[in-house]
Amino acid sequence: MIDPAAALSAIKFNSEGLVPAIAQQHDSGEVLMMAWMNREAVGETLKSGRVCYYSRSRKALWRKGETSGQPQTLKSFLIDCDGDTILLKVDQKGVACHTGHRDCFFTEVGPEGLTEISPVVIPPTELYGK
Amino acid sequence: MIDPAAALSAIKFNSEGLVPAIAQQHDSGEVLMMAWMNREAVGETLKSGRVCYYSRSRKALWRKGETSGQPQTLKSFLIDCDGDTILLKVDQKGVACHTGHRDCFFTEVGPEGLTEISPVVIPPTELYGK
Repeated sequence: MIDPAAALSAIKFNSEGLVPAIAQQHDSGEVLMMAWMNREAVGETLKSGRVCYYSRSRKALWRKGETSGQPQTLKSFLIDCDGDTILLKVDQKGVACHTGHRDCFFTEVGPEGLTEISPVVIPPTELYGK
Repeated sequence: MIDPAAALSAIKFNSEGLVPAIAQQHDSGEVLMMAWMNREAVGETLKSGRVCYYSRSRKALWRKGETSGQPQTLKSFLIDCDGDTILLKVDQKGVACHTGHRDCFFTEVGPEGLTEISPVVIPPTELYGK
């Protein structure tokens, strides 16, 4: 339970009231995903210790894992030098990506074009029902 | 030297023609910084193997290290599942942050407010002259 007041005054939200948040697995260092937070999502994440984003498509709070069963537990909350990006060190249960990959960055750009460099760990049908 | 065509067609640039790019030290896993790229910055980065961003404040290409002497060599270029975020695995010479910290995420939010969790490695006066 962390009081979000200091964080909320240090973060510079953009013109839409949002800030990008990078999620990194706290022990392995894997970069899992990048999503957006509004003031309410920052507050809920710090108070609850469970990561909550803001979904730009649904225009609503997105409590990570609520539908998929793959939540992120907050380990530390960092703000960058100019206050416009957040780094969340988390413990990701299962997979971070809605495609069922462990993280969202499974497409590598190389001399032969695009390559998928990591497997689907949990099929999306298992994550979201059939 | 990577042809940027496949990357440029897979990336969804935002309404300002930009995409966020996370830089991660390729071997240690440290998340160094987050900045923005336009199509030209993506092209130059892939072709040259040296990371080039787009500076929103200067409205110009930002060849990382050109002024500070702290460049990033590209090790791999990854696109996320929905094409709207890039992860750059890089080899960062010296420090990534203009404050002289190794990375930009040196401010932690905790129960006692904000704490600086890592030292200045190179004073900004050395990075940018006096």
